[in-house]
Amino acid sequence: MNTRSIARACTVMESRGAASAALLRELFPQSGRAHVVGITGPPGAGKSTLVAAMVEELRRRGQRVAVIAVDPSSPFTGGAILGDRIRMLQFHDDPDVFIRSMATRGAMGGLAPATHDVALVLDAAGFDTILLETVGVGQDEVDVARLAHTTVVVLAPGMGDDVQAIKAGILEIADLFVINKADQDGAARLQREMSEWDVPICLTVATRAEGVAPVVDAVAGLKGKADPVRHWVHRLRQMYAEHALARLDSGVVEEAARRVAGRECDPYTIIEGWLRV
Amino acid sequence: MNTRSIARACTVMESRGAASAALLRELFPQSGRAHVVGITGPPGAGKSTLVAAMVEELRRRGQRVAVIAVDPSSPFTGGAILGDRIRMLQFHDDPDVFIRSMATRGAMGGLAPATHDVALVLDAAGFDTILLETVGVGQDEVDVARLAHTTVVVLAPGMGDDVQAIKAGILEIADLFVINKADQDGAARLQREMSEWDVPICLTVATRAEGVAPVVDAVAGLKGKADPVRHWVHRLRQMYAEHALARLDSGVVEEAARRVAGRECDPYTIIEGWLRV
Repeated sequence: MNTRSIARACTVMESRGAASAALLRELFPQSGRAHVVGITGPPGAGKSTLVAAMVEELRRRGQRVAVIAVDPSSPFTGGAILGDRIRMLQFHDDPDVFIRSMATRGAMGGLAPATHDVALVLDAAGFDTILLETVGVGQDEVDVARLAHTTVVVLAPGMGDDVQAIKAGILEIADLFVINKADQDGAARLQREMSEWDVPICLTVATRAEGVAPVVDAVAGLKGKADPVRHWVHRLRQMYAEHALARLDSGVVEEAARRVAGRECDPYTIIEGWLRV
Repeated sequence: MNTRSIARACTVMESRGAASAALLRELFPQSGRAHVVGITGPPGAGKSTLVAAMVEELRRRGQRVAVIAVDPSSPFTGGAILGDRIRMLQFHDDPDVFIRSMATRGAMGGLAPATHDVALVLDAAGFDTILLETVGVGQDEVDVARLAHTTVVVLAPGMGDDVQAIKAGILEIADLFVINKADQDGAARLQREMSEWDVPICLTVATRAEGVAPVVDAVAGLKGKADPVRHWVHRLRQMYAEHALARLDSGVVEEAARRVAGRECDPYTIIEGWLRV
């Protein structure tokens, strides 16, 4: 597959139509070789810079690398965040680096399935490592990160108490912590704080590519520890919910919503009826 | 229903079992009167302080008020965020104020349905306004906010570029913007920025209860504009996904995941089989 046909296949996956299911079925037997690595953490931790530095390091090791950047901003105000990705342009002429930006969708469970299907395309296309960068925090990011084989949580010192909540939400899915901006005040304190959890920690200054090779080593070491069965349990449940919802006729849902809103019928009776079909 | 039986009913809803469906069916005909108001926005905007001030104002107007505080932190590090809620203790002796904290769940779609069911219990219990406070950003918060009749997005000046992404994610669901900490530098600039969107804006200094009465007025004015049919379309789809997933036997999913991980079978064939049942 050349870059153009890979990009086309990714677009098919994002469309979530019948064509995507057919293409996935065709590509599935060729997948299963890539290491899908989620890179997540709060805004401002330096994820994009770290991802760019990791791509450079992986290329130095002869790997083919793909990046899926999941962007929570709408098309209206996405400029600032897209700007972060400009540094990725350095890989523009390298056919062994493929970069794809994905926007979040409003529809329930819409992002994680599309992201996973794009990763499967890139896996089948022969990329060795697929870096899945998610911006921000929340259930959506957790869902996306769950679909990765290995999850790296990037933090930086001096982000205040707000980081508490963020850390809490992603602690349970972290396989590796990276404390980026490790040359800044508070890095040692953050490291002490994070060492309470039974997760390895790497220190980086991604803007200068410092500490990035050890991150790539640690990630490679985690590949063998990933549990593909657990991964597919999540994925199958998610696919099932997505496909079940896709079968609901929107007119039927609208009419049912009208009756429930008018208290003509309770929602539980309606759901039971749908599940009996 | 007294405070104790309401709290018990909320616990039943959080358990998501058969008892919750039976209780919901029983309570449903008594619901539909309350105004469910989502209060969301980035950490540090002062949502909890605003909610406390709104409760005071609503009590002054003779309303019975319930608060559902959705907390994204795990039990391990929840302390800091729970501390924010200590100010709510002032309502401890008031039987017409009911406060419930809910933790986010790891399970897909787990939080929004439970939150909505708790809101339905409080609606049936006769609370006039239900304030649904969600901390943080992300799909999860959007899902919870979608279930509210009216959504208030709270912002504060000086939160940096990170707020861009946050604003973008919640812009489409906002019925009202509140710029809190309006006495701080940058409030006017933030107001100018937000005025680009066709959404009314209120300015508050919640710590001094300044500007809170106009927020309560604006929220009350939005009650009539809420679309209960659209609300139930989202809710029925979410319930359907939740109940469909609940019917999947975990042993069956585990076995299928094992076969897919071993490339014995593709996931699309498995999902089709499940949907045919």
